[in-house]
Amino acid sequence: MGVGDPESLTYEAGRALAGADVLFTVDKGATKADLNALRGEICARYARPGLRLVELVEPERDRAPADYAAEVRRWHAARADVWARALLAELADGDRGAFLVWGDPALYDSSLRILDDVRSRGLVDVDVTVIPGISSVQALAARHRIALNSIGGAVHLTTGRRLTAEVAGQDSIVVLLDGAAAWRDIPDADRWDIYWGAYLGGPDEIAIAGPLAEVGEEIVAVKQAARARKGWIMDVYLLRRRP
Amino acid sequence: MGVGDPESLTYEAGRALAGADVLFTVDKGATKADLNALRGEICARYARPGLRLVELVEPERDRAPADYAAEVRRWHAARADVWARALLAELADGDRGAFLVWGDPALYDSSLRILDDVRSRGLVDVDVTVIPGISSVQALAARHRIALNSIGGAVHLTTGRRLTAEVAGQDSIVVLLDGAAAWRDIPDADRWDIYWGAYLGGPDEIAIAGPLAEVGEEIVAVKQAARARKGWIMDVYLLRRRP
Ligand SMILES: C[S@@+](CC[C@H](N)C(=O)[O-])C[C@H]1O[C@@H](n2cnc3c(N)ncnc32)[C@H](O)[C@@H]1O
Ligand SMILES: C[S@@+](CC[C@H](N)C(=O)[O-])C[C@H]1O[C@@H](n2cnc3c(N)ncnc32)[C@H](O)[C@@H]1O
Repeated sequence: MGVGDPESLTYEAGRALAGADVLFTVDKGATKADLNALRGEICARYARPGLRLVELVEPERDRAPADYAAEVRRWHAARADVWARALLAELADGDRGAFLVWGDPALYDSSLRILDDVRSRGLVDVDVTVIPGISSVQALAARHRIALNSIGGAVHLTTGRRLTAEVAGQDSIVVLLDGAAAWRDIPDADRWDIYWGAYLGGPDEIAIAGPLAEVGEEIVAVKQAARARKGWIMDVYLLRRRP
Repeated sequence: MGVGDPESLTYEAGRALAGADVLFTVDKGATKADLNALRGEICARYARPGLRLVELVEPERDRAPADYAAEVRRWHAARADVWARALLAELADGDRGAFLVWGDPALYDSSLRILDDVRSRGLVDVDVTVIPGISSVQALAARHRIALNSIGGAVHLTTGRRLTAEVAGQDSIVVLLDGAAAWRDIPDADRWDIYWGAYLGGPDEIAIAGPLAEVGEEIVAVKQAARARKGWIMDVYLLRRRP
């Protein structure tokens, strides 16, 4: 579904949504109201009028587990059970169900793993077609009008929690899922530029770029203020080693 | 412009193309005929009828330079001169020129660097808006119905020539620009799965996935045969360390 803008869907995605019999929705915490509003806009534009919405209720999740990967797996299995029951209950043979995934389903999203679980555990016999969408990483690059890679260089996509452990040897690092401000912990801040963006694609979009040593603390303050104002924030950034 | 399929454009891109006064094109070598045909389809669907096309002729390039980065920079500057002359000659004040970039301009594409050059050298006073597009990397993940990252893990995007030097410590590596078959040089092939795709998004799409030790040589053969048949190939793959 891209990030934040109904115009960022592809024609292929719009057409698939138009052909859907049911839209399965998963709503989470603080972003729920904004996500609902955007989904409403997207459906009004592309879906058949009166498209049936079915909410998939998220199982409880342990946010501070001893074994992170194991808890994620357990939780995914519980989600697969919820999804399987809903698919069986809501779709007749030959019907098409749609899931609107934020950004691109290939990046830090569990929908495809859950559907794999549903299929590989034999819970429901369902065909899956994936339609790519514009990810937040691409929205970031477009907003700053930059390429992610240096000439001929690599691009390392990682999470806030892994950043400091993985910075060595990289020259272009994209960070997602940073609940705090991991850019503060980069050694040699004066050797890096940062291209940062929050709420990309949406009406509240914010973008800041510059030498990390100069704008790093400004971004910390902007992020805190934005989160306080809106109740949630999603931000992503590129760290680029200076030539 | 996405890769290979007019339906993979976003509505935003389609609308921008509809508003363009001139389309600047850059054609390269073996892919020229196929690219021309696809561009024709895209324009027929989205552009205003009779949109003017202006071909930007590529300056000569040294393919085996002593200093790779320096030659790339020299060549970009020469391209910037060509682009600047064309923008000045073809666009009146307030006109809109469009560039259709393959995939997403944020990945291994020089268009934005050239336009930066045009602007920063003061050659033409032009506003640039970037509209993201579906990249080959996303088409690959969608075709195989997978996420690029393992749960909570990083994703390393790199080129064929860098692969073996960068494989250590990674568990998900996406390789673009591999003129040969760099997956052959991975140590411990039995520890990896490969998800490979060529001509993704287009009518000749090929996709193969499996344990690297089992399908690696099959992909070498398929790649050679496809290149011989069509005269060119573009392929991309994900290497994923097995659990
Ligand atoms: C669970 S991941 C999902 C990513 C999504 N699949 C995509 O393609 O962008 C959520 C993270 O993506 C990034 N993100 C998603 N939407 C964003 C937006 N509109 N602006 C900035 N960052 C965003 C943030 O780093 C956030 O923590
Ligand atoms: C110069 S880069 C441009 C990448 C482009 N900007 C994108 O977003 O996909 C060209 C490389 O992208 C990959 N590529 C582009 N189009 C492709 C396709 N249709 N199928 C497979 N790989 C493709 C190949 O690795 C190729 O060597």
